[in-house]
Amino acid sequence: MKLLIIGGNGTIGGNGTIGNKVTSHFAKNNEVLVAGRTAGDVQVDITDSNSIKAMFEKTVPVDAVVCIAGEAKWAPFNDLTEDDYYIGLKSKLMGQVNLVRIGQHYLNPNGSITLSTGILADDPVVKTTSAAMVNGGIHSFVQAAALEIPSGMRLNVVSLGMVEDAYENYKDYFPGHNPVPMKKVVNAYVRSVEGKTNGSIIRYYE
Amino acid sequence: MKLLIIGGNGTIGGNGTIGNKVTSHFAKNNEVLVAGRTAGDVQVDITDSNSIKAMFEKTVPVDAVVCIAGEAKWAPFNDLTEDDYYIGLKSKLMGQVNLVRIGQHYLNPNGSITLSTGILADDPVVKTTSAAMVNGGIHSFVQAAALEIPSGMRLNVVSLGMVEDAYENYKDYFPGHNPVPMKKVVNAYVRSVEGKTNGSIIRYYE
Repeated sequence: MKLLIIGGNGTIGGNGTIGNKVTSHFAKNNEVLVAGRTAGDVQVDITDSNSIKAMFEKTVPVDAVVCIAGEAKWAPFNDLTEDDYYIGLKSKLMGQVNLVRIGQHYLNPNGSITLSTGILADDPVVKTTSAAMVNGGIHSFVQAAALEIPSGMRLNVVSLGMVEDAYENYKDYFPGHNPVPMKKVVNAYVRSVEGKTNGSIIRYYE
Repeated sequence: MKLLIIGGNGTIGGNGTIGNKVTSHFAKNNEVLVAGRTAGDVQVDITDSNSIKAMFEKTVPVDAVVCIAGEAKWAPFNDLTEDDYYIGLKSKLMGQVNLVRIGQHYLNPNGSITLSTGILADDPVVKTTSAAMVNGGIHSFVQAAALEIPSGMRLNVVSLGMVEDAYENYKDYFPGHNPVPMKKVVNAYVRSVEGKTNGSIIRYYE
């Protein structure tokens, strides 16, 4: 299988802990191309549709697209300006929507697209009104778009709790949350890429 | 109680069936101001933060804000352009986010804000990738913002299935869906405005 993993080197959003682990796993038995903002096999700015299209033109055809990328601003509700919300809307929300809109035309038959969100969609914490919002939007988008993508193609989203490798950096934001072991993190993506489910929100919360 | 119902005359988004019924109910025993795009007691363009602020300046103080407004474009997934998604992002999504961001400062102590979404957030149908997405985003936003709004204030969202009064116009889009009786529609808003819940997604699906 040929995979294109966007953010697979951890250079797009987050701290890269998920992208690196997922990429290492799939690279064992598959051809993996990594798209990064500046490094990787191909460069992409997911806030720019033309950049997304150029990325697919350089990597076509692929069997599976995995997006582990996208940003949103974290700040207290009263500090977030209207413009601050558009950081997340343009990157993590519309960036992933555009990956599906454009990417569906570059996938091999029976290919899959896997997006990424997180537990904030269902169980937010303080400072995450913007991040929670874009995650929840993607959950509903995936369920809706899965009804209309080409027959045989699959679209899912992985929604993880705070992951083990990020625990030290993020634990103060997530009081009482239980870290998700990295083995489970990898398995969430394996379930989407190698399983047969379509339109699923693959929630791995502890 | 003094209520400000945005879209209460059915002039903002949707077909007005919900706004009119909810407004009639609350007007029986409360002071109700209706905000509409062109008619009503006060005019507002919910895609414009300055217009939202001006609306509150004219109606302050209020005990409850109810938003039954907001647009998103319905079209087949392959027909929706990137710009089309921004219709919903600017109106139904950020319009409602801005109502909370701005409105929280104009509410009486222990006031409430009630937003509106719909069943597409959880159970979308064809042609609703944009509409489902903004509804899902609002669900997560409400849960997150409820953690940070001023103490005593409440924020909820009402998510209805296809409502009885819209059944004839929309039934072809919702195969097998059961219409929600208008009495239940009104009660969903009553539960948010007169109950004590905060951060709730009040789902009334049949």
